[in-house]
Amino acid sequence: MNNTNRGRLLVVSGPSGIGKGTVCKELLRRCSDLLLSISCTTRPMRPGDEEGVTYFFKTEEEFERMVQAGEFLEYAGMYGKRYGTPRAFVEKNLLEGRDVILEIETQGALQVIQRAKEDVTSVFLLPPSMRELHKRLVERSTETPEKARLRFESAYREIEYAEQYDFVIINDQLEETVEALRAILIASHYGAGRALDHMHALKEEQVL
Amino acid sequence: MNNTNRGRLLVVSGPSGIGKGTVCKELLRRCSDLLLSISCTTRPMRPGDEEGVTYFFKTEEEFERMVQAGEFLEYAGMYGKRYGTPRAFVEKNLLEGRDVILEIETQGALQVIQRAKEDVTSVFLLPPSMRELHKRLVERSTETPEKARLRFESAYREIEYAEQYDFVIINDQLEETVEALRAILIASHYGAGRALDHMHALKEEQVL
Repeated sequence: MNNTNRGRLLVVSGPSGIGKGTVCKELLRRCSDLLLSISCTTRPMRPGDEEGVTYFFKTEEEFERMVQAGEFLEYAGMYGKRYGTPRAFVEKNLLEGRDVILEIETQGALQVIQRAKEDVTSVFLLPPSMRELHKRLVERSTETPEKARLRFESAYREIEYAEQYDFVIINDQLEETVEALRAILIASHYGAGRALDHMHALKEEQVL
Repeated sequence: MNNTNRGRLLVVSGPSGIGKGTVCKELLRRCSDLLLSISCTTRPMRPGDEEGVTYFFKTEEEFERMVQAGEFLEYAGMYGKRYGTPRAFVEKNLLEGRDVILEIETQGALQVIQRAKEDVTSVFLLPPSMRELHKRLVERSTETPEKARLRFESAYREIEYAEQYDFVIINDQLEETVEALRAILIASHYGAGRALDHMHALKEEQVL
């Protein structure tokens, strides 16, 4: 089985407020072949949301049916709402050789890393400082101060997960972060494990 | 100890005739901060060689003295001649945060990978086919046909080492190979292990 032509699943995670969305949007703009995986959620639509663009919006019942039918690559609960990654979109595109990016919170990311290990390249974004993360969370928050505080406290725990990722980027300057991500995506196509079949084929090839 | 500022040692290897030299030269042209490690050798100078540019040329006695003094990061024998990588140049530059590239045959490369594991990102170049490698070896060879044949036979064994490298590139198109190498070099600065100290510092940082 030759897997060198399979696409890569780029998992980008990090604590709330780190700027995952901005980073991924800019990466998608620069990598025209890269596809964004759209998650399902049970949270209500907010201003700026668009069905099938920011999320697929589901009722609790619809979401639960998808869980039971095994249609999620991962799913998780966050602050009472559920989020999940539809499996079919990811699998179809990887199989057809296209790269997929998954912008995802830390709980779901670890599930994907464990379940799709061979296909995944995982990147964790860290803030330059907690003070900076606090600023971003409070300033950018579309939620109540109480919710922003909960997210900030949770960030201290989430940061520990960084060790379980392949790569870690300190998201200070957008330009550096996006170029690092792009390099990581390109490099991920050349992991030694992906060339084993070619290596074996070479050894069988008689020339002289 | 914070190691995020250390330089990376990019080890590029592969069988004779694969085109390591061409690839590394072009990478150096595009990455102005990257430094080339110059090896020592006991082989005689050939047309085009320049002391301190292609190699540092040493007598058997000089080379052996350096071996005894522990001045090599690795050394190996190839077809009766000795080759070695001076340790001081590599260590000084990595410590000062500069990346170093090492273009090296497979035997020495494995020593470096084992000895400098944490600093090394290793890349193995494979040919698109053995027929193509044979063509390159015979056409480009500055040696006797007999020596070229020996090198080609040796390539079959060397290819097996590919599995022990971090990355493998099939060196078909120079442009793709060099861009892949450049991406691998950039990505290697973001390995998760390099961010551990920053992660720990964040966890200690009190904001609220």
